[in-house]
Amino acid sequence: MKLMKPRIVVTAGDPAGIGPEIVAAAMKDPKVLACCDPIVIGDPVAFARHLRPLPKVEMVPVPGLKKDFPLGQPSPEAGRSALESLRLAVGLIGSRQAQAMVTAPVSKESLHLAAAGVPGHTEWLAQETRTASVAMLMVAGQMRALLLTRHVPISQVSRRLTSRVIQEAAVLAHAFIKNSLGKSRPRIAACGLNPHAGDGGLLGMEEKKVYEPALSALRKRGILIIGPRPADTVFREMAEKRYDLALAAYHDQGMIPLKLHAPRQLVNITLGLPFVRTSPGHGTAYDIAGKGEADAAPLIEAIRLAAEYSCASR
Amino acid sequence: MKLMKPRIVVTAGDPAGIGPEIVAAAMKDPKVLACCDPIVIGDPVAFARHLRPLPKVEMVPVPGLKKDFPLGQPSPEAGRSALESLRLAVGLIGSRQAQAMVTAPVSKESLHLAAAGVPGHTEWLAQETRTASVAMLMVAGQMRALLLTRHVPISQVSRRLTSRVIQEAAVLAHAFIKNSLGKSRPRIAACGLNPHAGDGGLLGMEEKKVYEPALSALRKRGILIIGPRPADTVFREMAEKRYDLALAAYHDQGMIPLKLHAPRQLVNITLGLPFVRTSPGHGTAYDIAGKGEADAAPLIEAIRLAAEYSCASR
Repeated sequence: MKLMKPRIVVTAGDPAGIGPEIVAAAMKDPKVLACCDPIVIGDPVAFARHLRPLPKVEMVPVPGLKKDFPLGQPSPEAGRSALESLRLAVGLIGSRQAQAMVTAPVSKESLHLAAAGVPGHTEWLAQETRTASVAMLMVAGQMRALLLTRHVPISQVSRRLTSRVIQEAAVLAHAFIKNSLGKSRPRIAACGLNPHAGDGGLLGMEEKKVYEPALSALRKRGILIIGPRPADTVFREMAEKRYDLALAAYHDQGMIPLKLHAPRQLVNITLGLPFVRTSPGHGTAYDIAGKGEADAAPLIEAIRLAAEYSCASR
Repeated sequence: MKLMKPRIVVTAGDPAGIGPEIVAAAMKDPKVLACCDPIVIGDPVAFARHLRPLPKVEMVPVPGLKKDFPLGQPSPEAGRSALESLRLAVGLIGSRQAQAMVTAPVSKESLHLAAAGVPGHTEWLAQETRTASVAMLMVAGQMRALLLTRHVPISQVSRRLTSRVIQEAAVLAHAFIKNSLGKSRPRIAACGLNPHAGDGGLLGMEEKKVYEPALSALRKRGILIIGPRPADTVFREMAEKRYDLALAAYHDQGMIPLKLHAPRQLVNITLGLPFVRTSPGHGTAYDIAGKGEADAAPLIEAIRLAAEYSCASR
């Protein structure tokens, strides 16, 4: 008996960025072809503009771009192409022709020029699938950080960190570890917001006023979270495999250690959607688009993880 | 011709913590004895209470503790002992009997109970030596982060980050790299405060309003600082040896990557004092005091660096 490989849609993202190039590179990678049956979505013109052509794989074309559309800069055409690819991807998953979605990066500015009405992939997918609560999990090898706040200035992080934010994220993280990682007893640590996790209230009150009540409420629901612990300790301990996942209070708290630990394996996973969705942890990289210099490793890792998680949650 | 080894005073710190134990262990380490002539300062009773006795080295005793003083908790006696050791160490340096100082950890609470009037080593040394501007540099192998703010709640970091704070720290960092690391062209990066270093003002204004004017003013004085750059990029790039030092906006921004990178080499260096002063990057570790479990590696690294820097700046 042979297990079926999962079918995974891979969107080329913003055609003016490195998306088409890394998708083409990933489609030649034996690891990718071994773990899934990929379906690529994108504009054939976009693939033709890059140095690495797309090899023979199943493809759903998204026509519309002119042959000389500009690389390395945002445009309404690029935004429309990225958005249309995403729509088709959701359609394929909705009609059960694919189990999971991997998205190459989009540009917030292109989406804005295309009047998308949303700043990025995650927001668009949440809206499209009517998902109330999504969370962004970053993975880099054995390091996993769920970002409780994302693109928020540091001075405003404290007011965004509510008990509800912590609890919703913890519930999604707990379910992810059980269902996608297949571990029956999730080991989750919450990083404190402040240095030394507030040092008993001397260095900030959020740990006592927000974290402790939230973690108590979670424990009553059977979700055990360690912490709040000093963030500099948590990531050191996670490198020693003592946790499956950390709740990071803000963007850099999670991103600094993950990028340091394994930048070429950095993958973004959206929790809460009705399907598995991953993407590489970098942006459109306009500065090197079309130069043949882009590294496909994070996209390949995103595809590998999407395949692994789809199999686990079947 | 034989070069003289630097004479380095090593204080035992809070006698109720792991200080005496790790000092005793370090005094048996061939690396330590090869790089300096150490002078240990502490209470003989404190050394006797630990499992590892102090080997035969030059010692300045600080008597005063009772034989049964409690381990693993703060006390006025412990605070007085730590403070008196520090006074003697400053005296030895002032009378040119030693070139550099390495301090085992003290407890803020013991110092408070001893009515020290200062929260820690650094503040006490700055006051005692009438140094107006000191800075805390953390080092872990090739990673170096100067903390622009230290024990400050995250919600208050923004208001503490002034142009003056950035400029004073940058001047000290620049001088340290030239004089102590012996590099004629310091490569310093400033980490932005906000995610993506503010993303052009979309994710916070501190980069444009505080960092950019401060870095421009520094450049006019001949001090070249790269940035402000996204913090998650800076530490990845420093691991690839692209910078000598990073200016971190807040405690965890610098401590998360350094502890992850090389926790056993974590050393704290005070810049701005009229002499070299280092200490291990951990605390008193009351929970394991007297159990013989403490790791002397960070103290040994602190001594090694103190010797290296004293030789460089002679």
